[in-house]
Amino acid sequence: MPEYKVPLRDIRFVRNELLDYDAHYQRLPGGEEASADMVDAILEEGAKFCEQVLAPLNRVGDQEGCTWSESGVKTPTGFREAYQQYVEGGWPSLAHDVEHGGQGLPESLGMVVSEMIGQANWAWGMYPGLSHGAMNTLHAHGTPEQQATYLTKLVSGEWTGTMCLTEAHCGTDLGMLRTRAEPQADGSYRISGTKIFISAGEHDLADNIVHIVLARLPDAPAGTKGISLFIVPKFLPDAEGNNGERNAMNCGSIEHKMGIHGNATCVLNFDGATGYLIGPPNKGLNCMFTFMNTARLGTALQGLAHAEVAFQGGIRYARERLQMRSLAGPKAPDKPADPIIVHPDVRRMLLTMKAFAEGNRALLYFASKQVDIVQRSTDEAERNAADALLAFLTPIAKAFMTEVGFESASHGMQIYGGHGYISEWGMEQNLRDARIAMMYEGTTGVQALDLLGRKVLMTQGESLKSFTKIVHKFCQAQADNGSIKAFVEPLAALNKEWGEITLKIGMAAMKDREEVGAASVDYLMYSGYACLAYFWADMARVASEKLASAEGDKAFYEAKLKTARFYYDRILPRTRTHVATMLSGADNLMSMDEREFLIGD
Amino acid sequence: MPEYKVPLRDIRFVRNELLDYDAHYQRLPGGEEASADMVDAILEEGAKFCEQVLAPLNRVGDQEGCTWSESGVKTPTGFREAYQQYVEGGWPSLAHDVEHGGQGLPESLGMVVSEMIGQANWAWGMYPGLSHGAMNTLHAHGTPEQQATYLTKLVSGEWTGTMCLTEAHCGTDLGMLRTRAEPQADGSYRISGTKIFISAGEHDLADNIVHIVLARLPDAPAGTKGISLFIVPKFLPDAEGNNGERNAMNCGSIEHKMGIHGNATCVLNFDGATGYLIGPPNKGLNCMFTFMNTARLGTALQGLAHAEVAFQGGIRYARERLQMRSLAGPKAPDKPADPIIVHPDVRRMLLTMKAFAEGNRALLYFASKQVDIVQRSTDEAERNAADALLAFLTPIAKAFMTEVGFESASHGMQIYGGHGYISEWGMEQNLRDARIAMMYEGTTGVQALDLLGRKVLMTQGESLKSFTKIVHKFCQAQADNGSIKAFVEPLAALNKEWGEITLKIGMAAMKDREEVGAASVDYLMYSGYACLAYFWADMARVASEKLASAEGDKAFYEAKLKTARFYYDRILPRTRTHVATMLSGADNLMSMDEREFLIGD
Repeated sequence: MPEYKVPLRDIRFVRNELLDYDAHYQRLPGGEEASADMVDAILEEGAKFCEQVLAPLNRVGDQEGCTWSESGVKTPTGFREAYQQYVEGGWPSLAHDVEHGGQGLPESLGMVVSEMIGQANWAWGMYPGLSHGAMNTLHAHGTPEQQATYLTKLVSGEWTGTMCLTEAHCGTDLGMLRTRAEPQADGSYRISGTKIFISAGEHDLADNIVHIVLARLPDAPAGTKGISLFIVPKFLPDAEGNNGERNAMNCGSIEHKMGIHGNATCVLNFDGATGYLIGPPNKGLNCMFTFMNTARLGTALQGLAHAEVAFQGGIRYARERLQMRSLAGPKAPDKPADPIIVHPDVRRMLLTMKAFAEGNRALLYFASKQVDIVQRSTDEAERNAADALLAFLTPIAKAFMTEVGFESASHGMQIYGGHGYISEWGMEQNLRDARIAMMYEGTTGVQALDLLGRKVLMTQGESLKSFTKIVHKFCQAQADNGSIKAFVEPLAALNKEWGEITLKIGMAAMKDREEVGAASVDYLMYSGYACLAYFWADMARVASEKLASAEGDKAFYEAKLKTARFYYDRILPRTRTHVATMLSGADNLMSMDEREFLIGD
Repeated sequence: MPEYKVPLRDIRFVRNELLDYDAHYQRLPGGEEASADMVDAILEEGAKFCEQVLAPLNRVGDQEGCTWSESGVKTPTGFREAYQQYVEGGWPSLAHDVEHGGQGLPESLGMVVSEMIGQANWAWGMYPGLSHGAMNTLHAHGTPEQQATYLTKLVSGEWTGTMCLTEAHCGTDLGMLRTRAEPQADGSYRISGTKIFISAGEHDLADNIVHIVLARLPDAPAGTKGISLFIVPKFLPDAEGNNGERNAMNCGSIEHKMGIHGNATCVLNFDGATGYLIGPPNKGLNCMFTFMNTARLGTALQGLAHAEVAFQGGIRYARERLQMRSLAGPKAPDKPADPIIVHPDVRRMLLTMKAFAEGNRALLYFASKQVDIVQRSTDEAERNAADALLAFLTPIAKAFMTEVGFESASHGMQIYGGHGYISEWGMEQNLRDARIAMMYEGTTGVQALDLLGRKVLMTQGESLKSFTKIVHKFCQAQADNGSIKAFVEPLAALNKEWGEITLKIGMAAMKDREEVGAASVDYLMYSGYACLAYFWADMARVASEKLASAEGDKAFYEAKLKTARFYYDRILPRTRTHVATMLSGADNLMSMDEREFLIGD
């Protein structure tokens, strides 16, 4: 089982050297608390917890899984104790309001801690991850009383939370949901229905679980405009706010699934359970959208996590495993064979994982900077600009990062040859755990429609411009920078092309709406590669400046430049395929009759 | 759990309409037996067995897995009974010599049966699959006595076989293997050593297991030139050829692995076990190579299998699952939502799986025709031509088909959204089972080096020409066929480019050997897409002829034409990326110091 190390050097490079987070925090209202020293201390402590406590439980979680019984769900050995340590360390409160017991630090700092946790043990990290979603909902839409009762207990970590959206017949299409909420004389509601796929829906980590449930009021309009949001606690709080009566809801079963075995995926039955409305009636989906971006960035993290783990596992094995000689002649003549890292194709896989992990880290930290601004800036124009950028980048980050995260997990395994298929090395778990990320929180297809249809085309391309103008400025500013010319020139061309293909698809879509769906996933993947092209060019800029000034570790910056070159030479050409396919028209998809699909089957 | 149906209509299309197998069998020495009627009867019977007996055991096999104990390995419930039915049905003997109790039918017919078996239940199919490898070895290299003793029992199915190559420190690099063989006074050998990853290495399906073991003689030269081949039966045959004494070998453990749980992957310990030399001393690897092509085509089948299963599962769900409305307006207004098959991106995934399953079937059946000719033709020139084609196509079929098979398995799962991650639907098992195929029997990287280095460049491109000249002739013959112009023109251009890039890489490789490894996997994938472009153009030709003559089922041929168009519009552009990356040079892979990989990690 490969040992996991938090990539602190790279985390610091992206935060400090590329994105100047220190200046960002000093400008951010309430961000001054996050001094460079404090941030460093948090990163160090977080790394220790992740490496020493969570990482060793990753395989245990996979092998034991969760166990359901009538009385509840037992999490794998060690998960509960790790959660207690997490609470004692004050981690749940990091990025939450001081008013409710939080430390008031920026969301972006919480994201880095989530990144480490997710890399060490994704299944475990989902328990606090879901709480975070529930907290954000209560923060944005709860009444002061609801916040006092529920939010404080979630911030302290005493209780955990969930988000209950999906039902058996509807996941993407929440307009069809059937769970009912009957108003009661005391102002509460009786919630009845069955929710499925509820991550962290039942467990033994904490004393109570606060479910945020989507349901319909009796007089609600059909479809998405008739959905309201409710708090449904597992135990109803008593007058002192402690666990009181058991609510009329239970976990009916847990799913047997491909991976993330350490996290319980629950069927929850609400049998007239007591619930409390949050936010205005029938506005439940709108309320959800306010934090959807953050939740999706949380899933984007998973793509980064599995790429990082795959890279770390891959590089370790590639240096140790001796097999065959280099085609160019023995590189380790004293050994019975060369370490496989000498073989070009092994390097191709290693560099692919490295380019994705590091490139996606830059994309994600850039996006989380925008989250901070949206949450805290007092300058409306700045807030709106950050919001527009975030709206554009979020579906890309969610879908692109999880797609290439899965690809990376597969490369990590491939480097091990047959050994990669065996459980003890951890690479096959990494692949299994990675696969869900392209499906939950909106599939890749759903993200792609959101990006191309709702974000880019519905704003007449303004959403795209929020990002391409940054790239454009960068290319202009660096036009004379000879040391990164090899990146800036193709980047400028790509940036121009990005606008042109958007226009072409937009024109086609005016004649036929199917063109949007037909182009969407290729468009999203193209956009992801284009985003990373910008971040790799900018990282190359920083690296070349550091090398020129002979500052810091030469090998680190050389590696950045070489990885940037690899990215431009061997990853970015994937855009050529996406351009061709997305402009090939909808007809090659839509002309086949349903009946024609079946024949020959 | 989706029901599996043997795609008999498509199997017959490729065999009869595209490749005229009937004429092929009539020309083939000993192939006359395989009359159209007999072939049909075999396909029908095989389909029944696969659908009714094997497919229902696929999930059982995954969930129960194999169980190891001191006394041996227990296979999942029903596996043993299914094997008995298989033996009673005479299936093991299908494509083996009449002399040893076989039915003497062509190998290509055995391959179709293997295809069905593999689609119904890959893990189960590996037991007879490994026997087939052992039989081919004994057939090619065994003495008449060895054949009488072992081959007849394998042909009848009473015993099964294995191939024991890998050791803990060597998989790809067999030159390092350490298992020893000490000659004994009676002409036998004492075999000592440990083999790992032995598929079907121990089980309860049959009374005896014939292990074919690679080992070194005491005076053997180092490396690959000092390896010999031995028969090591689990039970030594007595004077009557029945199971006698237990040999000094045992299964030490079985691996816990990602998938193919129904097949036991064994550690085998040989503790001075009695073995018998097959073939000349120190020529073991050469002996292995004589049937390596067939074994690799057997693994290529797995790529086809998982694509077919993914397509069947995907299309079934896409027609049933109701979610969202078509962007072009409701298609099923009487239902609460449209079936997801209306969405362009779902169709993109369905068509991708369909294009790969059907295209790869054509590639595989074309290759197995060459196998028949190599095995049976009395015309040396014809045999050599088929052998050259097979040498070229085999690494492509093995690596390309398993890569796109895995991709297809992932699409099949994606269509199910979150449900795809849940075990009961079978799609996640299909993905887990598919993943091994890119690693065993030589990884994709190993196949790619074999193709580009050993096959194409070492023959100065002659190996490539064995195939491109067929494509060239086809393009010339069809130049005036207006109904498939959209395929023939790009195919001709691609065929020309294929030669040109080969030349470029060859030139670069003369200066730097690393260029071969650096280009190899992209070259292999490019070649796979190019092969399928030929087969899709040829299938389009057949379909357009049938449509013109109003022969047969119109919808079937329409679907072929539309899938061909989809392939050319949306899959073939992947070659653009591969051209760019494979010509980008080795330096972007090789310039990174090993130390530079580590920093930032």
